[in-house]
Amino acid sequence: MSPDTDLLPAEELHTRLQSIGDQFYHHRHPFHLLMHEGKLTRGQLQAWALNRFYYQSRIPIKDSIILSRSCDPEFRRAWRKRLVDHDGNHPGDGGIERWLRLAEATGLSRYRVVHNREILPGVRYAVDAYLDLVSHGTLLEAVSSSLTELFSARLIALRMDRLRKHYPWLESGLAYFQARLTQAPEDVSFTLDWVTQHATTRAEQELVMDALRRKCDILWAQLDAIYYAYVEPGWPPPGAYLVEEAGAA
Amino acid sequence: MSPDTDLLPAEELHTRLQSIGDQFYHHRHPFHLLMHEGKLTRGQLQAWALNRFYYQSRIPIKDSIILSRSCDPEFRRAWRKRLVDHDGNHPGDGGIERWLRLAEATGLSRYRVVHNREILPGVRYAVDAYLDLVSHGTLLEAVSSSLTELFSARLIALRMDRLRKHYPWLESGLAYFQARLTQAPEDVSFTLDWVTQHATTRAEQELVMDALRRKCDILWAQLDAIYYAYVEPGWPPPGAYLVEEAGAA
Repeated sequence: MSPDTDLLPAEELHTRLQSIGDQFYHHRHPFHLLMHEGKLTRGQLQAWALNRFYYQSRIPIKDSIILSRSCDPEFRRAWRKRLVDHDGNHPGDGGIERWLRLAEATGLSRYRVVHNREILPGVRYAVDAYLDLVSHGTLLEAVSSSLTELFSARLIALRMDRLRKHYPWLESGLAYFQARLTQAPEDVSFTLDWVTQHATTRAEQELVMDALRRKCDILWAQLDAIYYAYVEPGWPPPGAYLVEEAGAA
Repeated sequence: MSPDTDLLPAEELHTRLQSIGDQFYHHRHPFHLLMHEGKLTRGQLQAWALNRFYYQSRIPIKDSIILSRSCDPEFRRAWRKRLVDHDGNHPGDGGIERWLRLAEATGLSRYRVVHNREILPGVRYAVDAYLDLVSHGTLLEAVSSSLTELFSARLIALRMDRLRKHYPWLESGLAYFQARLTQAPEDVSFTLDWVTQHATTRAEQELVMDALRRKCDILWAQLDAIYYAYVEPGWPPPGAYLVEEAGAA
């Protein structure tokens, strides 16, 4: 094995990134496991959709920050696709709008979701930590934090299958996931090439891996906050969204 | 006249913005007057194109910062057009590339321009003050700073006419200005509507006017630095671009 100062071959870097995902990505989170087993109530899915909207609403802000940190028109041309994916090309289009339709399919009003007033502080802090990472880390770290897209398509494919099976009344809200099935692999292919090329020392490769790990933590921490508030022990803090129905499914 | 605390009617706000442009926009700067009279040397035009490239190269960064400060997908959809205008849709496209072609038409090598190594400190500080304004002012001020586009189409039309007349060898570099003739009026129409709608108190209207004034200062200060270094007294600081030919045209 090479000492910790040697540049890793690209394949080894990619293997290690994959291994970070295997260990730290939120596909293993107990909240997702309950979701995929059909064990969440409609109210718990509402709490998830409402809280996760804060993350969704910050994605184009995160991507604009990354755009603002690059001096390379070619990088910006590629990265700007993400703004189109999330904000769409006209009213009613784009990932943010599609997530709102998912929230509506759970039975929430769009108004209640869009203002981010009832989200959990723990979700807010995690998402804000993401904006902080892309604002104050190096551009290499900012870009690397999007590498979780390496793992998202598989999770989303599984999730769509299980949501359809266990919560068929959500069907009208699944367009968000359908779009991400093709968007995320396109994006991550660019990102993986870019970070592989721009991490030219072992120290930089370590920054890439650490940024991916930190992003996994950010996703995980959101589900922790949701699990604690709405599953077990089930104590949403004052001001947070209150589920109107009782008990588990 | 209404006291300084009353909300101005939209027409009066627009009249005052126009008046700020009449007084403070850089169409009156001595360097532009010399340019339009055909009194600049090729070397002075090179110094202008090289220095002004720093401004051009920061425009998509400025616009990405503004994008990152808005939580409104509709605003971001409209503003994002500016990234497309400046970065283009493929290599060789976009405003930054067109400015490089203008610099090449003056006889500079693209390599020399693109690295921003020989620009004047005064130009750098002015442009960086623009990034500071859009980063740290309110979103209303950040957006308002683009209102100089109210005045740019007229200046550009005049400039194209005079460049063709006095410096016909620049013809192959004029595509940048040709594109801005249609882009700027489209952009400023959105911006003017947006600031008119979002400045809902007189204090906010004053912020709008002040931001436009500050942006005019930023443009003016760049030409001051260029004039002092390359026209009169003509002392470029150490490290700055040195004109290779002598004297005036």
